[in-house]
Amino acid sequence: MPPTNPGRRRALMDAAIELLAASGVHGLTHRAVEKAAGLPQGTASNYFRSREALLVAAAERIVELHHADMDRIGRRHTDTAGPPPDITEHIAGLLATSLLEAATTLRTRYLAIFELRLEAVRRPALASALAALQDTSISLTAGHHADLNLPIPPEKIPTLITLYGGALFTLVTAPPGHITEQTVHGIAQAIVRGTLTPAEG
Amino acid sequence: MPPTNPGRRRALMDAAIELLAASGVHGLTHRAVEKAAGLPQGTASNYFRSREALLVAAAERIVELHHADMDRIGRRHTDTAGPPPDITEHIAGLLATSLLEAATTLRTRYLAIFELRLEAVRRPALASALAALQDTSISLTAGHHADLNLPIPPEKIPTLITLYGGALFTLVTAPPGHITEQTVHGIAQAIVRGTLTPAEG
Repeated sequence: MPPTNPGRRRALMDAAIELLAASGVHGLTHRAVEKAAGLPQGTASNYFRSREALLVAAAERIVELHHADMDRIGRRHTDTAGPPPDITEHIAGLLATSLLEAATTLRTRYLAIFELRLEAVRRPALASALAALQDTSISLTAGHHADLNLPIPPEKIPTLITLYGGALFTLVTAPPGHITEQTVHGIAQAIVRGTLTPAEG
Repeated sequence: MPPTNPGRRRALMDAAIELLAASGVHGLTHRAVEKAAGLPQGTASNYFRSREALLVAAAERIVELHHADMDRIGRRHTDTAGPPPDITEHIAGLLATSLLEAATTLRTRYLAIFELRLEAVRRPALASALAALQDTSISLTAGHHADLNLPIPPEKIPTLITLYGGALFTLVTAPPGHITEQTVHGIAQAIVRGTLTPAEG
């Protein structure tokens, strides 16, 4: 019977995220994870049969944390009454808040997912898992947009996710001092204007 | 006296780029590089004193190759006579061509630079080298835009580079079959419209 202590599983995953960010994908081993989580030797392999299973589980945990945060940001903003006067700027503001938090307070988490994305180039099973998570992200993002009454056409969501995720890669891998609220707001504005501006002519 | 055979140095660097893409940053060692380049043991340390010097030289070589290609694309397009009817679409076309080539034919090279960018988070000397290369990129990009008579305000260039480089990360780390001309053109259009659309209201 597989072990079923969800708290212990989460502790292992959270240690895995820290290790990925601090030491790169090469630093993520069963032994390092259980050690960092303060758990006895052998615990990690009870939960994750192979190194690949460990990598996939870390990716799933990061995506789960990401969507919990998006829900939180959504709920915070649906409390505001009335439609915003400038919807493009409103969306840019939401995106800038999320991007700035992701690039600073939550930097470790996103460094970890980018380590996994590069490793996936060499590991088809991890690539499949990330592709499935990406599909989930697209539909969850559409749901968040609906909750917030944002007029973003669903067919624009993949481009939005590519630009958001890509900009985040550039931000988390830049020297931390280089990230200012103004820079991030400029990037968020460009993403929203670029995605929502209809073709002219 | 340091060795001064530029052809041999380039051969070592080109082998380093292949290794970074194929095995990740962990696979890049002096021994692996000289072996992949078919050169005798000890050659790599004659050119690069430390592993950090090897990483920095690989980054410099990638940026040099990147700008040589941008020059080539620029020259190809300045041959066309007369101003294009829709400048935003014209720039989006240039960007889409460059992004598609980078994500497919030149994928190895950009996978390598993204490996280095993540490693730089843990290596201040590599981070400094990459920051200096980024500054060079900003001024070279401004020069390319001037050569092509593109009306891109210089203050928009850092945002443009962030979005372009970020989208490229997402593309090169996606499963290769997922990249279509249409997807890439949609991304390029969003980047150009987002960066060049003036604020309203």
